[in-house]
Amino acid sequence: MSNKIRLGILGGGGDSLIGVLHRVASSMYDSYQLVGGVFNPDLDQNIGFAEKIGIPTDRVYKDFDTLIEEELKLPETERMQVVSVLTPNFLHFPMAKKLLENGFNVICEKPMTTTYEEARILKDILDRSNAIFAVTYTYTGYPMIRQMKEMIASGAIGTVQKIDAQYYQGWINPIIHDGEKRAATWRLDPEKSGISCCIGDIGTHAFDMIEYVTGMEVKEVLADLNYVYSDNKMDVDGTVLLRFSEFVKGLIRTSQIATGEENNFTVSIYGDKGGLKWEQENPNYLYHLTETEPLKVLKPGHAYNSELSLDGSKLPPGHPEGIFDSMGNIYKGVARAIRKEKYHPGEFPTMNDGVRGMNFIERVVESHQKGNTWVKV
Amino acid sequence: MSNKIRLGILGGGGDSLIGVLHRVASSMYDSYQLVGGVFNPDLDQNIGFAEKIGIPTDRVYKDFDTLIEEELKLPETERMQVVSVLTPNFLHFPMAKKLLENGFNVICEKPMTTTYEEARILKDILDRSNAIFAVTYTYTGYPMIRQMKEMIASGAIGTVQKIDAQYYQGWINPIIHDGEKRAATWRLDPEKSGISCCIGDIGTHAFDMIEYVTGMEVKEVLADLNYVYSDNKMDVDGTVLLRFSEFVKGLIRTSQIATGEENNFTVSIYGDKGGLKWEQENPNYLYHLTETEPLKVLKPGHAYNSELSLDGSKLPPGHPEGIFDSMGNIYKGVARAIRKEKYHPGEFPTMNDGVRGMNFIERVVESHQKGNTWVKV
Amino acid sequence: MSNKIRLGILGGGGDSLIGVLHRVASSMYDSYQLVGGVFNPDLDQNIGFAEKIGIPTDRVYKDFDTLIEEELKLPETERMQVVSVLTPNFLHFPMAKKLLENGFNVICEKPMTTTYEEARILKDILDRSNAIFAVTYTYTGYPMIRQMKEMIASGAIGTVQKIDAQYYQGWINPIIHDGEKRAATWRLDPEKSGISCCIGDIGTHAFDMIEYVTGMEVKEVLADLNYVYSDNKMDVDGTVLLRFSEFVKGLIRTSQIATGEENNFTVSIYGDKGGLKWEQENPNYLYHLTETEPLKVLKPGHAYNSELSLDGSKLPPGHPEGIFDSMGNIYKGVARAIRKEKYHPGEFPTMNDGVRGMNFIERVVESHQKGNTWVKV
Amino acid sequence: MSNKIRLGILGGGGDSLIGVLHRVASSMYDSYQLVGGVFNPDLDQNIGFAEKIGIPTDRVYKDFDTLIEEELKLPETERMQVVSVLTPNFLHFPMAKKLLENGFNVICEKPMTTTYEEARILKDILDRSNAIFAVTYTYTGYPMIRQMKEMIASGAIGTVQKIDAQYYQGWINPIIHDGEKRAATWRLDPEKSGISCCIGDIGTHAFDMIEYVTGMEVKEVLADLNYVYSDNKMDVDGTVLLRFSEFVKGLIRTSQIATGEENNFTVSIYGDKGGLKWEQENPNYLYHLTETEPLKVLKPGHAYNSELSLDGSKLPPGHPEGIFDSMGNIYKGVARAIRKEKYHPGEFPTMNDGVRGMNFIERVVESHQKGNTWVKV
Repeated sequence: MSNKIRLGILGGGGDSLIGVLHRVASSMYDSYQLVGGVFNPDLDQNIGFAEKIGIPTDRVYKDFDTLIEEELKLPETERMQVVSVLTPNFLHFPMAKKLLENGFNVICEKPMTTTYEEARILKDILDRSNAIFAVTYTYTGYPMIRQMKEMIASGAIGTVQKIDAQYYQGWINPIIHDGEKRAATWRLDPEKSGISCCIGDIGTHAFDMIEYVTGMEVKEVLADLNYVYSDNKMDVDGTVLLRFSEFVKGLIRTSQIATGEENNFTVSIYGDKGGLKWEQENPNYLYHLTETEPLKVLKPGHAYNSELSLDGSKLPPGHPEGIFDSMGNIYKGVARAIRKEKYHPGEFPTMNDGVRGMNFIERVVESHQKGNTWVKV
Repeated sequence: MSNKIRLGILGGGGDSLIGVLHRVASSMYDSYQLVGGVFNPDLDQNIGFAEKIGIPTDRVYKDFDTLIEEELKLPETERMQVVSVLTPNFLHFPMAKKLLENGFNVICEKPMTTTYEEARILKDILDRSNAIFAVTYTYTGYPMIRQMKEMIASGAIGTVQKIDAQYYQGWINPIIHDGEKRAATWRLDPEKSGISCCIGDIGTHAFDMIEYVTGMEVKEVLADLNYVYSDNKMDVDGTVLLRFSEFVKGLIRTSQIATGEENNFTVSIYGDKGGLKWEQENPNYLYHLTETEPLKVLKPGHAYNSELSLDGSKLPPGHPEGIFDSMGNIYKGVARAIRKEKYHPGEFPTMNDGVRGMNFIERVVESHQKGNTWVKV
Repeated sequence: MSNKIRLGILGGGGDSLIGVLHRVASSMYDSYQLVGGVFNPDLDQNIGFAEKIGIPTDRVYKDFDTLIEEELKLPETERMQVVSVLTPNFLHFPMAKKLLENGFNVICEKPMTTTYEEARILKDILDRSNAIFAVTYTYTGYPMIRQMKEMIASGAIGTVQKIDAQYYQGWINPIIHDGEKRAATWRLDPEKSGISCCIGDIGTHAFDMIEYVTGMEVKEVLADLNYVYSDNKMDVDGTVLLRFSEFVKGLIRTSQIATGEENNFTVSIYGDKGGLKWEQENPNYLYHLTETEPLKVLKPGHAYNSELSLDGSKLPPGHPEGIFDSMGNIYKGVARAIRKEKYHPGEFPTMNDGVRGMNFIERVVESHQKGNTWVKV
Repeated sequence: MSNKIRLGILGGGGDSLIGVLHRVASSMYDSYQLVGGVFNPDLDQNIGFAEKIGIPTDRVYKDFDTLIEEELKLPETERMQVVSVLTPNFLHFPMAKKLLENGFNVICEKPMTTTYEEARILKDILDRSNAIFAVTYTYTGYPMIRQMKEMIASGAIGTVQKIDAQYYQGWINPIIHDGEKRAATWRLDPEKSGISCCIGDIGTHAFDMIEYVTGMEVKEVLADLNYVYSDNKMDVDGTVLLRFSEFVKGLIRTSQIATGEENNFTVSIYGDKGGLKWEQENPNYLYHLTETEPLKVLKPGHAYNSELSLDGSKLPPGHPEGIFDSMGNIYKGVARAIRKEKYHPGEFPTMNDGVRGMNFIERVVESHQKGNTWVKV
């Protein structure tokens, strides 16, 4: 019998891309076995999907509540050990909550919840449990991001003094300019997507990344969002000024109307001894700038990288790995945590990242609505 | 019960990187289930490895002959459908031969055999069977390589008139200059590695790639190899001039002493209407040059790509995929072939690629030994 | 006798880099002859410098007033036709003013003056004269910037909807953290450098560039500057949010504490049909992004470029030109204007650019001092 | 009176690009004054051109012989000190010869002559004179090429073991496929262009560059050229295998049918301690590869560069200079030599480079004609 971790998945059926990402990631390090879940609200499609992906259908449940009920009847040695929540955003909170309350470990897609309050409730529940909880800020799993984090921690660029993160996409451009489309897109509907589109979807990635690599906390934000049309209720572009302390500042720039941009997420951190820069679309390069030395370009898999970074590469230098491998690293970390093996806190984003992310979204919108003023995070 | 394709693996145990690559690739599209194999010549390590990667140990066999014997006892509906051969090079031929003779489909690592003669024998056997046989020239699975192939086929650069492929690495540099190390390295021992090191290991990738993307055949070669030391019996660097026809020429440049290079494999194809260029270390960019238009940079996942290319991307543009995903595409194609689904001949390299590759290696060494003269392929 | 334009230069002696830049630029198109000037406040050094650069010393004057006086005595056919003002910033205004009042054409380094008021005075004088007046925002002379301007004007990216300019340097980093150095650096002394360091020196380049390439005007700014130390009186970093209209926004990001950055000036303009991006450190590439086509990379000298762009290249594609060539293009435009030949208004930045630049600096500082609020430009 | 070096120019009139390049280069460091020449075989056009570029016409001569005659009548303090030969290739030899014989310093465009024999004759004459003679292999003037030379000399990459130079262009592609055009193009006419087109025009640049940066000499060549059509008499593509010693090899790859390539000249040198790579189209980056350190990217103007390199930059890092600046550096070196100031032998290519270049061309064609065999250089 397999000694893999028993994984369940909620959502991710049909043509879901996030489903593919999580399934591939879970299989990368021979650690997980997908044993069942609720991939689809429709039972027939649910079963059909299980067959399509070639897993037994006996633990494919008709709905979430049944999953909980039936799994709890199984002995602990057979029960799902961790459940990945890939459903629409508004379901993250109730599902994660009930999973935690019933002793399941949880891997939750971002945004973790739809409000900061929900996030805090979830945190309280987790604090009283022994469960492992991960939020899939996927980009933090890249080897060169891990290297960036450890280089900053070890003083490679001195004291951080300037931070600039960009997350530019163009995908909403053709939608926003078409009255019908912008009324019909769920991402632009506050009922379905919460209070923010651009900041909520991609701004949080930038926010989490900054705090991940620097180990610093954003203290205040001043935001200017763009809704482009007066009948549009959701931001599709926004700049957020950041303060970490009186003289340490930064900014997050996000857009979904940067026409032609694909997924142009970049992070630049400058300290008094040097700078580090990274681009998500070319994730295997980390640029180290100093005042007096040639520019250095670090790449994955080399012995000069930290252990945490090296742990995130499967092949030698020159064999490019990508975003599936990044998510695979996060799943690997969660597997270690579940198995109570030793792991580095940087291996996966936690509840704390999820809570801070929700707070960030609400404070940014508040700053914008108050006329672009400073708001404490 | 799972309807996944039942996969066996020979070799790839312990810390084998090629083992990781094949296991991850096989799991990417929910198509395969690893049911057993012989991962290691030592039975205990073999069992231990199976446990480590979390698969049942009942079909982990003590050796290759036992695997054949026992699997044949199973009903066809339970028997392994395909076996991946990841063992040391000299075992590829006997194992692939026996697998084909016993009706198994085969996925074989490159080089397919150690001699051209073995390759032709294997081809004869395959020609008399109904089996699917793939050789894992991994790089042909990249979406932008597939796009390159289809653009050339569709006339995007006109008639091909100039070809240049480079495969530069530096890994053998510290070994070659150390008398003891170069005597002890199996790659430099003709008994273990066949007649060529550099051409055999990486030159064949370049050769196969050129024929894959252009659909043309190399007719003649003139090679100059470098052994660096007179006591060294294996090439570690070599340039091969190519002739496709009287006025269509090209070259393959390979090196393992290009110090500091990682896995710098590039392909440039020029026609009378334009050129196409690609670099393995940045595999998600395809450069299209013409005389009168701006340089165009094609990227995976866009609607302007061919079906074959799009089939090789799992996520939208801007989400970088890498070499695991490339190998995953090859496994996906093999799965379709095994399931007798429709597939494109460009989805995986076949026996023919393997045979030509072996011929290429022998002709290159012949050309060098004859004093750098032209030899027909 | 030469029919070149007779050029005088104020400042730029000794090891002055700006002097080299202007002299080389003036010589690039066989249009100017340097006939004299005041290179240095010390007459001996002044003469010595003239000898060093190999020009006759008879029109090398002891000071600016003498230059005016003596040149006016010469017949118009011998008199300096244009004078380049390369002196310290606070001298730009009085010198440019007197030159204009005495009928000389002027090429003035930026910042044009030290206050917005001075700038308006200068503009009034120019408006009543027939003189040619250029401000050397050097970067607008690059062929791909000219191409960007014309592509935007011709609708290549549709209606502009998002603008992002970055100008990051790191040079002041080692100075700012050293109490003695930061007290002794003239750039950080408001007496010598006006009210702003970072915005005044490099922010204005970004501001002018945005208005140059888009043809649009910034209407409002909200700025957050960073002085890093409480005893430091000049900004060394700053982010400026821009409004062009209610729903068309942008930002300028500037820093002199982005440690390790050299002269990293980039401009990205997004419209509803596409985007255009450019980087000063690799000035011969213009990136054109659309939603449905491959990324296009335009390069100088190709027939697909506009006339204005092509006029800025001296050699065929593939022969990189740089910042000297960019300044040379500005001088070429001024030569045409002086000779009353036909020229394109985009060939050199004018008084209007200078005036708006000074207004921008003052409004940015005002916004910061008012607590990061919106201020009209 | 000016103390600049008195420069004459032969050729380079009309729309000549090479004329622009030399005039701008000569003016870059305030060292030369163009006093006359023979820009055009037609006297009227000759005078007209002098007026257009704004120089006095009194020393614009009707032909080369007259120039020699008249200049010799002038006192040495007024006579041209150096003459740049920019005429069609077949005139280089007779003009350079006569100039040297009459005591003029010479700056000669490449190829220096049309045959190796002419080159040796020229060398003999020079050896018996005190003149300065430079051949304008322009690319050797780039600061990062100078840095590459000095790093190799100082052992930064250890003992050189592998060399690869590429010079790919596509410009002849539309001509070669058009029977009429290829018959009418002077570059493809052996009467006008000597025995080689591609090797003669660009292969020599690669050859000179390799010997320049490594300080090593090519000992043997084996070449395969491509004439593309049987009625075409001149190579438009060619690969040359190089031997420096038994185990140190390299290659030069050249093409004018690499459709879409502009001026893609690259040089890669690998030693047993590391590698150095450079690309002409992005000349301000020098890549330093080692086995154990991150990739280092060196840029001009930094203190970590050698004196020779730093001498070739006029502005601080981040201000891109280009090919005009590279040629300017060569002219600067020649000026120092003429003035008998101290200079580094790497500042400009000499007669020796010219002679070896002509020998290379002839040996390459010989190797090709002998059926692609090894020929000593």
